[in-house]
Amino acid sequence: MNIGIFGTGVVAQSLAPGIARLRHSVMIGTRNPAELMERGTPAQGTQKTFAEWSRAHSEIKLGAFAEAARFAELLINATSGGASLEALKQAGEENLRGKILIDASNPLDFSKGFPPTLLVKDTDSLGEQIQRAFPSVKVVKSLNTVNAAVMTAPKSVGGGEHTLFLCGNDAEAKAKVSEFLRALGWADLIDLGDISGSRGMEMYLPLWLRLWGALGTPMLNVKVVRG
Amino acid sequence: MNIGIFGTGVVAQSLAPGIARLRHSVMIGTRNPAELMERGTPAQGTQKTFAEWSRAHSEIKLGAFAEAARFAELLINATSGGASLEALKQAGEENLRGKILIDASNPLDFSKGFPPTLLVKDTDSLGEQIQRAFPSVKVVKSLNTVNAAVMTAPKSVGGGEHTLFLCGNDAEAKAKVSEFLRALGWADLIDLGDISGSRGMEMYLPLWLRLWGALGTPMLNVKVVRG
Repeated sequence: MNIGIFGTGVVAQSLAPGIARLRHSVMIGTRNPAELMERGTPAQGTQKTFAEWSRAHSEIKLGAFAEAARFAELLINATSGGASLEALKQAGEENLRGKILIDASNPLDFSKGFPPTLLVKDTDSLGEQIQRAFPSVKVVKSLNTVNAAVMTAPKSVGGGEHTLFLCGNDAEAKAKVSEFLRALGWADLIDLGDISGSRGMEMYLPLWLRLWGALGTPMLNVKVVRG
Repeated sequence: MNIGIFGTGVVAQSLAPGIARLRHSVMIGTRNPAELMERGTPAQGTQKTFAEWSRAHSEIKLGAFAEAARFAELLINATSGGASLEALKQAGEENLRGKILIDASNPLDFSKGFPPTLLVKDTDSLGEQIQRAFPSVKVVKSLNTVNAAVMTAPKSVGGGEHTLFLCGNDAEAKAKVSEFLRALGWADLIDLGDISGSRGMEMYLPLWLRLWGALGTPMLNVKVVRG
């Protein structure tokens, strides 16, 4: 399948090869590919410049947002939360129309330092904002509750015995995303209903950040234990 | 140990007998005990009037907030989040001074129906508000992330193989609360640091409510799986 990933940071750089390993064809989408390839500093949380990373991952294509959107049968939003709506606007409604978009982003606001606060919460969420801005896109919120390295390697934490959430308005899109996630190794998926489930999934982040602090590693997740 | 529980709703009615079973002496604190005993309708989520419940639980004492505070060596706040600060004011700073208070409440706002929103979030929390209002009290946030029935019976969900969080500014108070929680059956406790950890613990509620909806039961909890 052709997969388009919006974003070039640590999440996209972790997702892209993890997904390409499953024999999907992957294109990373960015605002300005030429400028990105000339950038002399690594993205936050990464070790290499994007050009160096790109040379080490020749299987990953690179294009403008619109190009990645046209290329893809399945899209993943891995941009920072504050930049997501603008990135999708640049991709163009006509290139996104009818497609499934996994929204893996979190609306984190680092402007006042660490810990970040949330740009949107409680009565709304980034997942819902994206769905409202692009009504023809089938938005499925998922993957945002785990570290980038865990997204495509759930077995790296406790042998994979933990839970991934998803939500969205389109049942068929959720079924397709579930199949895609199972292929990545996610055995325990919980469907939280319509896209407003994004509120809880995004508001979980402050707890997740505290768990990282308490355990000293972001290689963690929760398993939902039932009665 | 003498335990005082603030609140008379479903959480207090579940906590009180569960704690009394461990041979603690328990007093429920309320605004007006006489009025409560005359009330003709059950509290939300309960089946009996408080007087009927009280007759069936003669081991549980009842007193005004101030009386329960004076009685107790360890206090638990199980009032609704919006009423917690006022309840503690009625208990009186002089009766609370230096005592440990487990804050099990959530700042839920049901004024616009279901799902509730949060009265405080993101840059502050109810746990912190209580700690600021009563600086001499050793506030430990805990128990608020599970259903009332699970609080004193963790083994009723998945044999008890799941996690309870706590946070607070006083290390000794957290050690004493941890001992108390272990006696209730909580084997996996995670200390999230100072009282500002309440933010994440309270903002988890929207996800918890969605899980209840998805699984069809509030008898659930999360187990934190480590790398």
